[in-house]
Amino acid sequence: MQYMNETIKSQLAHRTIREFTDKPLSKDLIEGLVLVASRTATSNGLQASSIIRVTDKTIKEGISKVCNQEFVARFPELWIFIVDQYRNGQIAKENDCFEESIGDMDRFFQGFTDACLMAHNVECAAESLGLGTVYLGSILNDPAKIIELLKLPKLTFPVLGLGFGYPNQDPQLKPRMDMEFRMFENTYTVWDNYSELINEYDKEMQTYYDLRQANQRVDSFSKQVVTKLTNVNPIRQKMVKDIISQGFDLMID
Amino acid sequence: MQYMNETIKSQLAHRTIREFTDKPLSKDLIEGLVLVASRTATSNGLQASSIIRVTDKTIKEGISKVCNQEFVARFPELWIFIVDQYRNGQIAKENDCFEESIGDMDRFFQGFTDACLMAHNVECAAESLGLGTVYLGSILNDPAKIIELLKLPKLTFPVLGLGFGYPNQDPQLKPRMDMEFRMFENTYTVWDNYSELINEYDKEMQTYYDLRQANQRVDSFSKQVVTKLTNVNPIRQKMVKDIISQGFDLMID
Repeated sequence: MQYMNETIKSQLAHRTIREFTDKPLSKDLIEGLVLVASRTATSNGLQASSIIRVTDKTIKEGISKVCNQEFVARFPELWIFIVDQYRNGQIAKENDCFEESIGDMDRFFQGFTDACLMAHNVECAAESLGLGTVYLGSILNDPAKIIELLKLPKLTFPVLGLGFGYPNQDPQLKPRMDMEFRMFENTYTVWDNYSELINEYDKEMQTYYDLRQANQRVDSFSKQVVTKLTNVNPIRQKMVKDIISQGFDLMID
Repeated sequence: MQYMNETIKSQLAHRTIREFTDKPLSKDLIEGLVLVASRTATSNGLQASSIIRVTDKTIKEGISKVCNQEFVARFPELWIFIVDQYRNGQIAKENDCFEESIGDMDRFFQGFTDACLMAHNVECAAESLGLGTVYLGSILNDPAKIIELLKLPKLTFPVLGLGFGYPNQDPQLKPRMDMEFRMFENTYTVWDNYSELINEYDKEMQTYYDLRQANQRVDSFSKQVVTKLTNVNPIRQKMVKDIISQGFDLMID
């Protein structure tokens, strides 16, 4: 590839790391990552996301239980990225502005996007420094429990966790679908034979060893899609209820 | 800062670039960015996001109109990142799996998160190569119109646009709130005097010149928050309606 540099090399080497050495991250390093987080692009400049850095053993274990992943409790660093419209709502109130729009879905999704971008900015920086990272979408297995554990006020909502530290495992690159099927010019391309198109990818996936499954080969991508669809989590499916409980208004009536 | 490298230097220099030179981006460069996009972390490995690269002048102008930003029509590159559960839904169907869970909110948010992470991965790579970038949350000013323009099928949804190219402007770094107010340890910190706390930031913001506003100084952050809250967009507020129209099920009844 002609356009290669240190950043892109690091991005192309992205793998999920779930096991870390005991080496703690220095205060300087953490401060560097916080600075990167602060410079992340944000919708309308409103900075409607925040981070909870979890260092308390009991809270970490609580989150680990929600994630149903025991290794979460052992992460050297565990940061939870949240939608945060609470702060801006308070700033508005202190300026005699009591607009209900602070809880509309426009605000919610702006905060959700802000939180995702910030998490990814931290991931990129961490990996460029040789750290390993793992995203925890699994915190949404029970948003209400995460809200309770982190004492999140109204108008906030958990989005994504990020665990990181010095890697203690060296997994393979996980095969990815050809971008031909994920990138289109001008309008979306609908095919009528996906199984045929991804046949090669399905086979490639079966050559991948998942360290989580005692080094067993994994299923084809197609089979993974089916398995995931048939294993639903009712709390995750209904997470809009938790979003409403946090004071957001769908405005669909 | 002790932990500095090329990646972090580029991340700390992030600014929004809205004007670009005419120099087109080479095929090699685009392919590099597509490769980076493909390696982005994805929820459960399901790759539930896609990209529409908009090169057609008429479609670009249509998007520019939705965004209410004339410069969008002049972007050298315009990529729209979308939730994509359509593809996996079809793969499942071709394998005789007709689970309605493909349209639940768990799937929607997984795809939304996938799309945000992918957009940010492209942004990081582009900036590391000296390109300028601008996010377009404004595509959500009218999701239905974007869906029509890009012919997005059911179970997809627009998330974020990214414009990029060789920069033709050199804006200041935009002041950011101190992370002290955005990052907390273990539990969320609620204050009762935000205005006082961000007083310094409010002043700092007023020293920032916005190139969009004929180099006028901008309002304090507090005033910006109030202004944005009182200028609502009813379509954005009700965007859940558009999400439902695309075949997603809130499951709140």
